[in-house]
Amino acid sequence: MKKVVVGLLGCGNIGSGVVRLIGQMRQDIREHYQLEIDIRRALVRSTEKKRDEAVPRGILTETPEDVLNDPEIAVVLEFLGGEQPAADYMARALRAGKTVVTANKMALALHWRELQRAADEGQSGLYYEAAVGGAMPIIRVLQHSLQANHITRLSAIINGTTNYLLTRMTDEKLDYQTALSEAQRLGLAEPDPSSDVEGEDAAYKLSILASLAFHAHIPVSLIQREGMTRISQVDIRCARDMGYTIKLLASAARSGSEVDAFVSPVLVPVHHPLASVKGAFNAVYLHGHAFDDMMIYGRGAGSAPTASAIVSDLICAAQDPAPAFSTFEVVDGLSDSVSMAKDRTCAFYLRLQVKDDAGVLAHVASCLSGEQVSVRALQQPQATENGAQITILTHPAEESRVRSAARAFDPKLVKVMNILRVEE
Amino acid sequence: MKKVVVGLLGCGNIGSGVVRLIGQMRQDIREHYQLEIDIRRALVRSTEKKRDEAVPRGILTETPEDVLNDPEIAVVLEFLGGEQPAADYMARALRAGKTVVTANKMALALHWRELQRAADEGQSGLYYEAAVGGAMPIIRVLQHSLQANHITRLSAIINGTTNYLLTRMTDEKLDYQTALSEAQRLGLAEPDPSSDVEGEDAAYKLSILASLAFHAHIPVSLIQREGMTRISQVDIRCARDMGYTIKLLASAARSGSEVDAFVSPVLVPVHHPLASVKGAFNAVYLHGHAFDDMMIYGRGAGSAPTASAIVSDLICAAQDPAPAFSTFEVVDGLSDSVSMAKDRTCAFYLRLQVKDDAGVLAHVASCLSGEQVSVRALQQPQATENGAQITILTHPAEESRVRSAARAFDPKLVKVMNILRVEE
Repeated sequence: MKKVVVGLLGCGNIGSGVVRLIGQMRQDIREHYQLEIDIRRALVRSTEKKRDEAVPRGILTETPEDVLNDPEIAVVLEFLGGEQPAADYMARALRAGKTVVTANKMALALHWRELQRAADEGQSGLYYEAAVGGAMPIIRVLQHSLQANHITRLSAIINGTTNYLLTRMTDEKLDYQTALSEAQRLGLAEPDPSSDVEGEDAAYKLSILASLAFHAHIPVSLIQREGMTRISQVDIRCARDMGYTIKLLASAARSGSEVDAFVSPVLVPVHHPLASVKGAFNAVYLHGHAFDDMMIYGRGAGSAPTASAIVSDLICAAQDPAPAFSTFEVVDGLSDSVSMAKDRTCAFYLRLQVKDDAGVLAHVASCLSGEQVSVRALQQPQATENGAQITILTHPAEESRVRSAARAFDPKLVKVMNILRVEE
Repeated sequence: MKKVVVGLLGCGNIGSGVVRLIGQMRQDIREHYQLEIDIRRALVRSTEKKRDEAVPRGILTETPEDVLNDPEIAVVLEFLGGEQPAADYMARALRAGKTVVTANKMALALHWRELQRAADEGQSGLYYEAAVGGAMPIIRVLQHSLQANHITRLSAIINGTTNYLLTRMTDEKLDYQTALSEAQRLGLAEPDPSSDVEGEDAAYKLSILASLAFHAHIPVSLIQREGMTRISQVDIRCARDMGYTIKLLASAARSGSEVDAFVSPVLVPVHHPLASVKGAFNAVYLHGHAFDDMMIYGRGAGSAPTASAIVSDLICAAQDPAPAFSTFEVVDGLSDSVSMAKDRTCAFYLRLQVKDDAGVLAHVASCLSGEQVSVRALQQPQATENGAQITILTHPAEESRVRSAARAFDPKLVKVMNILRVEE
């Protein structure tokens, strides 16, 4: 029986879940993996605070060094969240030769290089399955199951909060504010939801996924980002009328050495597997030249699902304490082997508020054709007292041309309400 | 740069795909994994036969010993298919200390114990990602990502042929024979389709998945098996009218030490992620106490997707030549730690052809209530010249009671056309 001594950085919701899960699975882990897990210390802000009864009070400490400097602790589990001091503590643990398991997408995405250097120095390694997609084993799948592929595309629903909001807005026709209040009441959205609804959280995760998929560092700063706050009930209804549902996607594509990466609301066909991802569930849809299409679907957050990924990493860490971080050289900015695409070609959705006038449609059509943007579908419902509306789906077109056509619309006749990408 | 010398058993469609993929990815595999793959020999039935041009003629041999006895060959890739001589050759390779990578569900499911013994003797190991679900990384996920869970349930679409047939029958209202002829023409069904449509192929795969999920050997012989040939257009339409689609599922559930495992057509709610699995795609839906619900979706067959899984296994084999087969003692029959469930509780669908007579519904209802089977929904379309029909969805009930109620129907009034399980 092998024994692994573990230290925790943080012991809130996730940390307590991990302690609880290890307790539940102790006997199984002994039997199946010949492993004994000893949770030695847990760093917390206050040892006085009331905690989950699964956490023995004796392991709590307010002194980081009790975890970081204990030579018996071989694996450090980090769930402090946020950039600092988490990144610093992880680097210290790695330099001290400890294997680190983290659920912290932000610290990883922003400090990848520093962590890699610390691991090199300490000849240690880092596991980060829980940093993206909770229980979904997407990191391990990218690292250990799809090696023989040129992955050309990934489209992911990796923010549970926004997917929950969009699901409620779509299925129950709630407006954004009502859906948000509900989500906050249920603990599915933060009191300040901006990191989720503005796509920041998804961008950190996409940086990690795209870097692994394309074997090149794609920094967060180069990911184009647009939140979901511009999505209204009208867009959801118009999309549905044309056979689509709106999802906040984190998408990355590679063509040759060109990479495109963005977080943005996208129209997804209702029969696409991503359209069936409802509520707080997450999913990653991938395309590779050999495996073709694949999707991983699961709980992207929550105490028990996140603990599932962390304890899995811990068991792997006990077997292989110094795994390679990645298959690419981790640099501070974009890897030399790739460049970011200047433009993107895909289908687009345009919703226009127009003057109820016979010549408007011809004007719109002429602006689009002037930029070689071809229309695949167009809907113009009966005009109401709010004016007339046109929704358009284009054939695949360069984004620059679509935006340029939109700028050419006469502002006295046409107001552009929304332009969104369409997934095929 | 590490070098791994590889021998192939078989070089047909899958084997050629593997040679081709290794050729395509040679430079990437060197860069990302510091690994050089040397394909030394390939056993074939005839060296004269025309093959994919990716396969160098010089590696072909008709002598198994050229692969099995070459001391330089460290990894043997097996894609002969079928039970023998594949199982024999694999056992010989394992005893000789070679790591084996196989795509052969049948040989593995039927000879697991013998292969395990051979591996113990040779201190070698076996990889079998490609044996279940083609490119879908379900084996690795079960082994390396869900260790901290009590998996209680898995429901899988793991036969592409039958899912293709059911999709065509559902979406295009084709009858079974027409869909089958089409599939045969496209190479998606064998000339003799019985192993697929009778659920044998799925049962081999389910034996492997359920054994890994439940940490206990669940032999093929104890898996209840029912094919899709009893499914008619009428069933598909009736199911759709009640919000369901019919899928051939390979399902296993564990409750305490009781295991239930079957391959059978099942009604799946149209909004369930499994319902969106169309055509030749595969998917495995899992439930664990910590990760909650999860699904893996991908190509279950085909030369390139299968090669993707095999080359991934090969790269893993080069890094870890003697992995544990499993986390349970492989025995010949059912593991001691579990027993097979005698009955099963779930919702059921019944389609009855009835006499167009006022008292029939009361008779049916009374037979069901006599067995405490409670009706959740019932449809009785207008009678036609073909007689009247009743379709019933029950609340969860013991299967034995549902069947016993069906036996109690008066054969002069009621003919049971079909009884199917319903997934919730």
